[in-house]
Amino acid sequence: MPELRKDPVVGRWVIIASDRANRPTDFIRESVVIRGGRFCPFCYGNESKTPPEVLAYRSDGSTRNASGWSVRVVPNKFPALGIEGSLNRQGEGLYDKMNGIGAHEVIIETPEHHATLAMLPPSQIESVLWAYRDRILDLKKDRRFKYILIFKNHGAAAGATLEHTHSQLIALPVVPKWVAEEVEGARAYYAYKERCLFCDILRQEISGDVRLVAENDLFVALSPFAPRFPFELWLIPKAHQSAFEESSKPELEQLAALLKDMLSRLDLVLNRPAYNYVIHTSPVPEHLNDYYHWHLEIMPKLTNLAGFEWGTGFHINPTPPEEAAKFLKEAARRVARITG
Amino acid sequence: MPELRKDPVVGRWVIIASDRANRPTDFIRESVVIRGGRFCPFCYGNESKTPPEVLAYRSDGSTRNASGWSVRVVPNKFPALGIEGSLNRQGEGLYDKMNGIGAHEVIIETPEHHATLAMLPPSQIESVLWAYRDRILDLKKDRRFKYILIFKNHGAAAGATLEHTHSQLIALPVVPKWVAEEVEGARAYYAYKERCLFCDILRQEISGDVRLVAENDLFVALSPFAPRFPFELWLIPKAHQSAFEESSKPELEQLAALLKDMLSRLDLVLNRPAYNYVIHTSPVPEHLNDYYHWHLEIMPKLTNLAGFEWGTGFHINPTPPEEAAKFLKEAARRVARITG
Repeated sequence: MPELRKDPVVGRWVIIASDRANRPTDFIRESVVIRGGRFCPFCYGNESKTPPEVLAYRSDGSTRNASGWSVRVVPNKFPALGIEGSLNRQGEGLYDKMNGIGAHEVIIETPEHHATLAMLPPSQIESVLWAYRDRILDLKKDRRFKYILIFKNHGAAAGATLEHTHSQLIALPVVPKWVAEEVEGARAYYAYKERCLFCDILRQEISGDVRLVAENDLFVALSPFAPRFPFELWLIPKAHQSAFEESSKPELEQLAALLKDMLSRLDLVLNRPAYNYVIHTSPVPEHLNDYYHWHLEIMPKLTNLAGFEWGTGFHINPTPPEEAAKFLKEAARRVARITG
Repeated sequence: MPELRKDPVVGRWVIIASDRANRPTDFIRESVVIRGGRFCPFCYGNESKTPPEVLAYRSDGSTRNASGWSVRVVPNKFPALGIEGSLNRQGEGLYDKMNGIGAHEVIIETPEHHATLAMLPPSQIESVLWAYRDRILDLKKDRRFKYILIFKNHGAAAGATLEHTHSQLIALPVVPKWVAEEVEGARAYYAYKERCLFCDILRQEISGDVRLVAENDLFVALSPFAPRFPFELWLIPKAHQSAFEESSKPELEQLAALLKDMLSRLDLVLNRPAYNYVIHTSPVPEHLNDYYHWHLEIMPKLTNLAGFEWGTGFHINPTPPEEAAKFLKEAARRVARITG
C-alpha cells in the first residue's frame, strides 16, 4: 500500500510508493561527465570573457580580473534580472507587475575545469561557502532586495549550461512563494508550540535514526519525512540558526565537510547524478528570528515530472526516505576509502 | 528589462525575460513521434493485458474487454494509489500520514495506435471528454475522494511511458495544495469583489486582445498573464461554471473543437512538442460555487527546471505570453488549411 505523507513545514502531501521500493540502480540516468576541450569562460586566462568580478579570493597578490584566484564571483552574463533601476510596481487592469530588478551572480568554485564540487578538498568547499556568505552580506545592504537565494545546478539534466563547476545567487525584490510558505509554516508551528519546527524535527530524527544519514558536531544530514524526490537530502545546523549568512568559521568548516561527504555518497550510490541544491535562509527583513531554521536541500534529478505533479503540486516518490537513508549510510565506508 | 508578473490566482511571481524574446524555433527539442512496432496493451486485441475496463464506449454491441470500443477506461496497471481500504490517518511523532487510497485510471483515447489526440476528429475528442465527465461523476460517489484530477502526458519528455495516446485520472483523498491555493485565491477575490476572478480575467483578455489566441461561442483560449512555461495555454468556458463535470453537450462539443485547434497549432508552431495538460475543476466537497471557474491548462515541455525554480517556486519564462499568443494566432490559417 502506498503511503501519503505530509511535509511538516509547508503541508505538501507526497505519495511514497513504497511497494515499488526502487533500488538506486533502477534510476538509469546519464552520469554527469566533465568533458572539457572547449573554450571555458570560467578557466584561468579567460577572466575578461565574464563581466568584471564582484569578489575573488586571491592569496598570491594577483590582480583583479586576472588568474590567480581560488574562488571567483562574477555577475551572470545573461542575467534573469537586471541590477539597475527601480521596481516601479504597477497594475495592468486586474494584474500586478514590476520591473525585473535583482542581482544574478555566478560563484566559480575552483579554477580546475575538470573538478566537481564533490571532488574539491574540504578547505576549498569551505571557501565556496565563505563566498556565498560574503556575497549575501554585501547584497543585503541593498534595500530593494527581500530575498537572496544560493543555488547550484550540477549537470545538464539539472539545468546547468556550463560544465565548469559553479553555483549561482539571485537576489529578489520579493520573498518567493515557496520560501514564504516555509517561513509561514515554521512561524505557525512556533506560535502554537513556542519551539522551532526544524529543531523538533532534528530531535525526532536523531532519536529515531531511520532517516538520519550522517552527523558531525554541528550539522545533520537526513532524508526528509516527505521528500519530493528520490534521495533528496537536507543538511541542517544542529543549533537554532535562522540565517545561513550568520554562520561562524567552525560551522562553515563542518558544513563543507558534510557537504563533500554527502555529494560523494550520492555520486557513489547514484553513479554521479545531476542534482540541484538550494540554501533556504530567512528573508532579509526578518533574518534573525526564533521560528525559521536555515538548511541546505539537495535534490538529485532522477525522475521526470508529469501532468499529475504539474496539476497538483503533489509528488510521487518511488523511494521511501528510509530506504534512501539506508543506501546512503551504507555508502559511508566506501566513500571514506576512496576519499581517504 | 525583464518583468516580474504576478499570477492573479495564486500570487506566484514569474520572471518574463522579455529581452531574450525567444522565437518558437529557439526551443530545439525532440518532436514527439509515434513509432509503433512494439506490443501495445492499448491496441485492439490486447484488452486482456490491462485490468478489466471500468468504462468503454461501444456502438457496435461488442462485448466488454474485447475490441470494438472507441474510448476505453481501465485502472492503471501500476497505480500510484490503491483503491481498497480506509485512510487510517495517523501521526508519527510530529509528522502526519495516511494510507495511499485513491483511484488511478487510464483513458485510452482511440484504438488507433498511430494517432495523437490532436489528429483525432472533433467528435472523437468529444467522446474522450465525455469519458472524463462520466468517470468523474462516478468517482464522486465515493465519499473518500476530495479531488479528481484529469491529466495528460504527451511524449516521453512530459512523462509518458506508453506512446498510444491516453489521458489519466487520479482521485485523491485530499485536495492537492496547488488546487487548494487556486480555490483560495479565487475565494478571496470573490469575498472582496463579489465577482469571479476568472470571469474578470476573461472580460479583460477579450477586450484587450493581446493574449487572446482564439475563441468560439462558449470557450476562450488564451496565454495567461504570468505563465510558468513558454507557450502555456488556458482554455476557459465563457460562462461561469465551477465544475468541468457539469458541462453540457454543446460545451463539450465546443471544447473538443477548440482543444483540437490549440493542440494542432502547438504542433505546428513548436514542431510537435511534448506537453502536459490538466483540468482544474472544483474540489468535490464544494463543486458548485460562485468563486472558482474550471479550466484546462496546457503546458508544453520546452525548458528544464533548475535550482532556482526548485528553490523558490519562481519560474523564468523566456517567452512573453503576448509573443506566444501572436505566434499561435498566426498559425490559425495554416492549421485550417491542413486540417480543413
